[in-house]
Amino acid sequence: MEIREVLENYKEHLGETLVLDGWIKTSRDSKNFGFLQLGDGSGFGTIQIVYESDIENFKEISKYPIYSSVRVEGELVESPGAKQPVEIHAASIAPLFLADGDYPLQKKRHTFEYLRTKAHLRPRTNTFQAVFRVRSLIAFAVHEFFQQRNFIYVHTPIITASDAEGAGEMFQVTTLDMENVPTTENGEVDYKEDFFHKHTNLTVSGQLQAEAFATAFRNVYTFGPTFRAENSNTQRHAAEFWMIEPEMAFADLEKNMDVAEDMLKYIIRYVFAHAPEEMEFFNSFIDKGVIDRLKNVVESDFVRITYTEAIDILEKSGQGFKYPVSWGIDLQTEHERYITEEVYKKPVFIRDYPKEIKAFYMRENEDKKTVAAMDLLVPGIGEIIGGSQREERLDVLTEKIRDFGMQPEDYDWYLDLRKYGSVVHSGYGLGFERAVMYITGMSNIRDVIPFPRTVGNAEF
Amino acid sequence: MEIREVLENYKEHLGETLVLDGWIKTSRDSKNFGFLQLGDGSGFGTIQIVYESDIENFKEISKYPIYSSVRVEGELVESPGAKQPVEIHAASIAPLFLADGDYPLQKKRHTFEYLRTKAHLRPRTNTFQAVFRVRSLIAFAVHEFFQQRNFIYVHTPIITASDAEGAGEMFQVTTLDMENVPTTENGEVDYKEDFFHKHTNLTVSGQLQAEAFATAFRNVYTFGPTFRAENSNTQRHAAEFWMIEPEMAFADLEKNMDVAEDMLKYIIRYVFAHAPEEMEFFNSFIDKGVIDRLKNVVESDFVRITYTEAIDILEKSGQGFKYPVSWGIDLQTEHERYITEEVYKKPVFIRDYPKEIKAFYMRENEDKKTVAAMDLLVPGIGEIIGGSQREERLDVLTEKIRDFGMQPEDYDWYLDLRKYGSVVHSGYGLGFERAVMYITGMSNIRDVIPFPRTVGNAEF
Repeated sequence: MEIREVLENYKEHLGETLVLDGWIKTSRDSKNFGFLQLGDGSGFGTIQIVYESDIENFKEISKYPIYSSVRVEGELVESPGAKQPVEIHAASIAPLFLADGDYPLQKKRHTFEYLRTKAHLRPRTNTFQAVFRVRSLIAFAVHEFFQQRNFIYVHTPIITASDAEGAGEMFQVTTLDMENVPTTENGEVDYKEDFFHKHTNLTVSGQLQAEAFATAFRNVYTFGPTFRAENSNTQRHAAEFWMIEPEMAFADLEKNMDVAEDMLKYIIRYVFAHAPEEMEFFNSFIDKGVIDRLKNVVESDFVRITYTEAIDILEKSGQGFKYPVSWGIDLQTEHERYITEEVYKKPVFIRDYPKEIKAFYMRENEDKKTVAAMDLLVPGIGEIIGGSQREERLDVLTEKIRDFGMQPEDYDWYLDLRKYGSVVHSGYGLGFERAVMYITGMSNIRDVIPFPRTVGNAEF
Repeated sequence: MEIREVLENYKEHLGETLVLDGWIKTSRDSKNFGFLQLGDGSGFGTIQIVYESDIENFKEISKYPIYSSVRVEGELVESPGAKQPVEIHAASIAPLFLADGDYPLQKKRHTFEYLRTKAHLRPRTNTFQAVFRVRSLIAFAVHEFFQQRNFIYVHTPIITASDAEGAGEMFQVTTLDMENVPTTENGEVDYKEDFFHKHTNLTVSGQLQAEAFATAFRNVYTFGPTFRAENSNTQRHAAEFWMIEPEMAFADLEKNMDVAEDMLKYIIRYVFAHAPEEMEFFNSFIDKGVIDRLKNVVESDFVRITYTEAIDILEKSGQGFKYPVSWGIDLQTEHERYITEEVYKKPVFIRDYPKEIKAFYMRENEDKKTVAAMDLLVPGIGEIIGGSQREERLDVLTEKIRDFGMQPEDYDWYLDLRKYGSVVHSGYGLGFERAVMYITGMSNIRDVIPFPRTVGNAEF
């Protein structure tokens, strides 16, 4: 039986003799009895095992190293005065595999930096038990949200010959022999020899392909890994991360914001319902106040303002920003956080950004100066979602591609979506790790990814 | 309102005036009235729109090209004698965006080969509507199955410096300039200059990392893209495909087979419940008999035999196999299909394979000749799942790594899982596309992947 089941439904099992497999998390003993905290990873909690000197291997048990695996048989009894209402009175404690005595994660608190070097063991610690369980729950909540609303899940390609955003540093994918790169007569790399017979990269976004599917299924979403080869070493950037990108036909920017808001609230409610112990842990040890902050999000109507209004607020704020504010600038994190944390104290959508600072596929507004883009800013993080209504007019889009210095021929299939069956459509991207950081209160992206990839790091 | 909602709950909406956005799928007219089939991708069905000559733009409507988007307003009325019980009697049909008249997918049936060249448009056809909706449903069913059973979803890394199976052709990931590869003094590629400061590849499996998480959470699963740079051009192989890899602590091979069997049945039941129209379509047009075959799977107990028994059956079969049979051979598709299609006519697990033909991490049986591996064979496909109990004994595993010509130092973190907290544990891999092919009856893997990647193909 799993320990989670025992603890969740202990009243049903009181007085029963149970067989539990698990790992020894802590161990202490005195002359005539001893205590183990037994965990099996099935839930956040461990169960106390009490054993007495009448047990056959009494003298050995206290010497079993931490993280030895054992099979315990014993009666589930009430545990008066203890943290948990029940404990196991052991009839037998059989060692399965004894751990080496030099377990690298001993009881004392380790820094997150150290634990990153033990990424294969850190999920066994309280913090990472909580983080990775919540990560899993958020992922499922995302799927459930979209599937309940009849969105089709699309696996857009990871290896791609195009660059969705017309920018961004990308990883190259190749089977060419780097020791001996084949070249053409002109001395250029001969990509005809490469696996795909052309230069290919890892995707930075599945949006364009998702748009194709939205013209077939109306509402679709992607959820997959994306990659940026940015040589930056910040707490918020990783080279490999997961993205969620819904795309909706017959939907304008207002609808887009509605769905983003509903989705974020759905995810938070789901985590509260399925990981209350983990959320209490974050609130106590990682980010005091995270529960109240998230409750506030769930209960608020998100603010919706235009970029122009945001600039006005910032200019009139009297704040000494590091990056000066004027219409046309790209908002910096300090600006975003001021608006969401100081002015509104809740999530804020900013919409209608200057077209020069946004991507080519965003729909030009009637003012010809702005595009129907929206960013969702949240307290403590800044931008968590970015999206837009897409340019659905063939002529405007074609011109925009040229304006951005790209070739319409390279986007022939994407332009086909406007030639045949064009519709008003919108979508957004949620950085999955940003969402996990936001909900857990963890401040470094390396600590919410099982085996993070950053500059110089591809261990495990 | 979505058309799916109208068709599913038409009794509630009869007599109402509805506003429907969608695409014109077919169009025909006579002197005084016309018919459109309107689809919006929300479901497999389209709805018939009837319009009469009293409508303002009566003469234009019949000229709107296929896949123009329109907004229809009209009353939902009963449709006596028609295929569907209801239709819309249109009060207005407003064009949103008129398609070009040369839509590449006209009414006539196109070959799947041709449709692959139009991968951005093919999801609009009946076949690919059905395929990609079922693909989405299967993906969700997988998540729901594991989440209901308290498995943690783990995103194992896509970019990796290790090769999980000690074999297999891999794609290299790099940011080095291929025109000018930096070299060391010895003339070798200087990977210190590369993004991760070492040689990195795309993953072929997340199993080893999943094992680490299983020693923390007991039951975990991965669901992500994996890659093989095999220069093969078959109907069953793609360079980029998705894999599901559960991994369970305190679970032996028998438990492993139980979970695999339950999972497959769960997925099939889920698809039957959520895509009955699509399954009828496959049964009628793609693979006659697929529904009965899958029902048989759901209602059967899967057969479980050993490899040695399988060899015995094949040797006594009197069949003229292309690849001769003897103990020690790797089973070929012809052998697998004979056993599952001719002998048992239902899914068959084969277990306990010769250790020489299986991976280093599989647990050696007491006979020292075989390992606790299992493959699940299904009629019509052959192998769909491969798994094993993992070698949990540190000394045996270390020796095995050496026997396979690898260095234990390269697997230090993996060996740590046996040093600290080793347990009997098992897992398997389900090729997601194989599952989609199996359930839809589609015979080419290129036709169940939104934008397939194969040798020489990375379009879109």
